[in-house]
Amino acid sequence: MSIVNPASNYGTVTIVGVGLIGASLGLALKKAGVVNKVLGVGRSADNLDQALKLGAIDGIVDLVDAAKQSDVIVLCVPVAQMRTAFEVLEPHLESRTLLTDAGSTKGDVILAAKEVLGKKACQFVPAHPIAGGAQHGAGAAKVDLFQGRQTIICPLQENSPQDIALVEGFWQSAGAIVKQISGVQHDAIYAAVSHLPHLLSYALMASVVNSEDAEQKLHHVGAGFKDFTRIAASSPEMWRDICLANRTPILKELDQYLAMVSHLRTLIANHDGAGIEKIFKKASQARQDMDGF
Amino acid sequence: MSIVNPASNYGTVTIVGVGLIGASLGLALKKAGVVNKVLGVGRSADNLDQALKLGAIDGIVDLVDAAKQSDVIVLCVPVAQMRTAFEVLEPHLESRTLLTDAGSTKGDVILAAKEVLGKKACQFVPAHPIAGGAQHGAGAAKVDLFQGRQTIICPLQENSPQDIALVEGFWQSAGAIVKQISGVQHDAIYAAVSHLPHLLSYALMASVVNSEDAEQKLHHVGAGFKDFTRIAASSPEMWRDICLANRTPILKELDQYLAMVSHLRTLIANHDGAGIEKIFKKASQARQDMDGF
Repeated sequence: MSIVNPASNYGTVTIVGVGLIGASLGLALKKAGVVNKVLGVGRSADNLDQALKLGAIDGIVDLVDAAKQSDVIVLCVPVAQMRTAFEVLEPHLESRTLLTDAGSTKGDVILAAKEVLGKKACQFVPAHPIAGGAQHGAGAAKVDLFQGRQTIICPLQENSPQDIALVEGFWQSAGAIVKQISGVQHDAIYAAVSHLPHLLSYALMASVVNSEDAEQKLHHVGAGFKDFTRIAASSPEMWRDICLANRTPILKELDQYLAMVSHLRTLIANHDGAGIEKIFKKASQARQDMDGF
Repeated sequence: MSIVNPASNYGTVTIVGVGLIGASLGLALKKAGVVNKVLGVGRSADNLDQALKLGAIDGIVDLVDAAKQSDVIVLCVPVAQMRTAFEVLEPHLESRTLLTDAGSTKGDVILAAKEVLGKKACQFVPAHPIAGGAQHGAGAAKVDLFQGRQTIICPLQENSPQDIALVEGFWQSAGAIVKQISGVQHDAIYAAVSHLPHLLSYALMASVVNSEDAEQKLHHVGAGFKDFTRIAASSPEMWRDICLANRTPILKELDQYLAMVSHLRTLIANHDGAGIEKIFKKASQARQDMDGF
């Protein structure tokens, strides 16, 4: 790795998967002036062209060339595609090249990295920028997508302190507030605060759409329903992959949630106003406190 | 009733329960210039004072006086308090006085009105303005709260066409787009698109807060979680009452929802990516279409 000072210059950076996250990262790194050039790898020529026009990337390469000429490679592909990306990169990966990612789950990506990269796994510092939105594709990119928002990094035992510091500085230079937690903790926490809400939101939309009076219901939705289901507009492919990749923690959180819903169902059926109010009060207070964060 | 033309002048209007909805209605009616004066009835002297200071009401009365001197009385109290309000009003209610309400459920309110008001039930045209927000109290009032948003009216068989037209004009003059549906339809639809999402949102907040690593989870929430749980900041008392008042339709919708969640749980446990994606795609498309409304 040719970089000495974190946040000084990251040389040639290749972004693999130039969607909302990848293209926003390109814009942010270039605005921060911490890169020589940003290259893009992707499946869709249209999307890559759009990223070029937006100035999110300076050129287009394939994964093999990326492995040969990059100082940093950032994998922004859906989590189910990480293993294949590692397989293509591994034989050509230079020892100076640092790898990071933007995957929403970490356990499965770390497992794939260790299995596929072998000794080169020390070059991979896993990350998860907590940013995104219902829109996807390079066209939705925003230069300030990461600004002031958390990026979690989950260092491996194999990573050197210097490489961890470099990847931390890298995400910071895109505007992120970087926090370190373990991959296991990450997956448990995000199963609860991100993956489960997405699953529940998709389920409500699906339940309403499948009902006999769907059209009438959809014509009477208010602001509350729209807030609750906003995340159900997210990419079905990406969230299918996340549900599969992180299924053990998600099922655990789902079962805890279903126990709470069942309890509320019983309270309602038993006309137990005091019991319902006690739960609602605790929830309401916690949600109001959150806006103070 | 002394009003001939809908939307000309509604005389003396009394708002019973001067919270977010009641105080916003006072502001809107006065701005529209369709009232002689607006009186307020409430339990909290502080809240009534605030409504006076904001100009949402011109004076404070008790329910008995309201019954004697009002042309229109609007019940904006929680649904569980409607029956008591009808009981106090009934002996003093003048035949010229029109009643409407802002209750989030209709079946229980209509039942209470018919039982308590008897022959005078013909003077009550039930309504439900689809407006609100996480904030409550007169201090949160907005003059444009109803502007361009739906207000549902659920006329009774006993109502005269003239009274229905008057109440329709009344809510329109506050800025609302008025739609008529039956009380039974109303309760089924809103169980699905409003009551159930609130219940599910409270349940997620409660489930997270009750978990052992609650603090860590709450420090990692993103925009999606905040959208999903925004409605869990709503009034616990109001939503307890709604859950009880509309419990049969809510439990029916909840059971349909739980069947969908169970199905998704099985698909995830079985690693059935195609099955998950099919449901997510349908939900995502429906949610994206909604933003076109």
